[in-house]
Amino acid sequence: MQTIALPTRSDIENAAGRVAGYVRTTPVLDLEAGAFGEHGPLTLKLELFQHSGSFKARGAFNLLLSRAVPEAGVVAASGGNFGLAIAYAARALGYPASIFVPEVTVAAKRDKLSALGAKVVVTGEVYADALAASVAEAGATGALFAHAYDQPEVLAGGGICARELAAQRPELDTVLVAVGGGGLIGGFACWYAGDTRIVAVEPEQAPTLARALAAGEPVEVTVSGVAADSLGASRIGALGLAATQRWVERSVLVTDEEIRRAQWLLWDRVRVLCEPGSAAPLAALLAGAYVPSTDERVCLLICGANLDPGTVSPAA
Amino acid sequence: MQTIALPTRSDIENAAGRVAGYVRTTPVLDLEAGAFGEHGPLTLKLELFQHSGSFKARGAFNLLLSRAVPEAGVVAASGGNFGLAIAYAARALGYPASIFVPEVTVAAKRDKLSALGAKVVVTGEVYADALAASVAEAGATGALFAHAYDQPEVLAGGGICARELAAQRPELDTVLVAVGGGGLIGGFACWYAGDTRIVAVEPEQAPTLARALAAGEPVEVTVSGVAADSLGASRIGALGLAATQRWVERSVLVTDEEIRRAQWLLWDRVRVLCEPGSAAPLAALLAGAYVPSTDERVCLLICGANLDPGTVSPAA
Repeated sequence: MQTIALPTRSDIENAAGRVAGYVRTTPVLDLEAGAFGEHGPLTLKLELFQHSGSFKARGAFNLLLSRAVPEAGVVAASGGNFGLAIAYAARALGYPASIFVPEVTVAAKRDKLSALGAKVVVTGEVYADALAASVAEAGATGALFAHAYDQPEVLAGGGICARELAAQRPELDTVLVAVGGGGLIGGFACWYAGDTRIVAVEPEQAPTLARALAAGEPVEVTVSGVAADSLGASRIGALGLAATQRWVERSVLVTDEEIRRAQWLLWDRVRVLCEPGSAAPLAALLAGAYVPSTDERVCLLICGANLDPGTVSPAA
Repeated sequence: MQTIALPTRSDIENAAGRVAGYVRTTPVLDLEAGAFGEHGPLTLKLELFQHSGSFKARGAFNLLLSRAVPEAGVVAASGGNFGLAIAYAARALGYPASIFVPEVTVAAKRDKLSALGAKVVVTGEVYADALAASVAEAGATGALFAHAYDQPEVLAGGGICARELAAQRPELDTVLVAVGGGGLIGGFACWYAGDTRIVAVEPEQAPTLARALAAGEPVEVTVSGVAADSLGASRIGALGLAATQRWVERSVLVTDEEIRRAQWLLWDRVRVLCEPGSAAPLAALLAGAYVPSTDERVCLLICGANLDPGTVSPAA
């Protein structure tokens, strides 16, 4: 049996102190009942304003500030939010970063990583190839390997966001959190530890957590759909799963159509422009996948906005 | 000599009480030095999240809640933010609204007004024609005429936003505010009344305030450029000018190119997507049109986001 050490509240407190001055405190926005349709008052946690455009910067800074970073720097595999966050944090701290991406990664994403000063290594047909190559590189050069979601320091990054939210809105009953690899929800679960209800939201086409909860262990899932760029991890992390099993009340699924509609409504009714994955919590609310009780104080975590603004439209 | 009665702090306090529950409290975001380039720490007041996508909803609600609205409802002339705000507020309060727009108004804007339940009247070649027709309509039907910026209740709407900001960040030294017809800056000037420095920012191609300050009275200005949709009033309001002459320290101008660049940087570095006019304050800072002293605590008011997201790009 594997021993899994989850970050404690005290670990998260320490992490918050460590990254202070490096990450942004992101604001919350309180919305009236009915802002998007049939629902009560809501709070949005606007984590999309974080450095590099997603919550991932919190875990990236925490990891690089926790460990002794070798001369070879840091290595990660990700053409998405984690890659951007590691590149951003490494540049800010003066470390070299190598980001491994598969050949399918579009040029715009590679260019963004390069613009942040990272060495971009294009290798293999699929993400798993890039991941394997990045692990090999770390082994060969001694560089620090940064896992996108299954390291305690990365989970603690999500916990820092939860801690900040708890201070901003201590009265919340429920927080809806989108799930990809489980690092973010794992951090929220570890911070709140049952004090506040956490609901996991996944796309039907990327049910990494739902399948793992059913199986009792991480399982490999084929992922696709509009939110695959941010929530498309094919396997839940062991840490995120353990935290979820212990402290997350429920896991719900939403369709791509529901996600697209929620993404549009966030722009149309509030002028928050976020990536599809970040709209999944609102989709769950509007589709009735999660139905709060009367007077339940609900927060939707809007966790990232790495997208082309022109892709958001009512007809999308 | 004309007597001009500006809203007092007490008027603004009353207005804030009146609109409570109808308008949103919008958050502030504190940003690190260098977020956009060469500058110190900044605060953004994210008023773009207001109902109808701009600060105008505050004045619209205040006007409709201050006056006895006749059976004929409310009439305004505006294809832009004020029209949307009046249509939104009238619908929320159950009043009929007629919005007059010139023939040049694009279908997308007319459709938005219709979707908010307003009767859209297309008349005349230019804005002045629509304005004249709306005044005539109000005279004929007894409907309440709502002026986009030159009514005390509308100025007080801007004041409510200033009051909210002052409570959120009492330590600010300076607030940079974009100017169109002068209703917003007038409200800020009336609230702060010299306690905090207010800097007016206008596009070079719509220098309605700058020209009026030079002439000592409102003058007709030919307006154009990327921000004309939100800052393109051709004449400053008498109230806004009076408040500005009394309490605004400085008026500065920015180019369209500087505005477009600031608009892109707000998205690229922070994921705030706003209309060009709302980026004018950042443009003034980055172009050196306003240079804060060391340790000066500066806030940029981001006042609206009624735009097509696809129009924001680095090459724009």
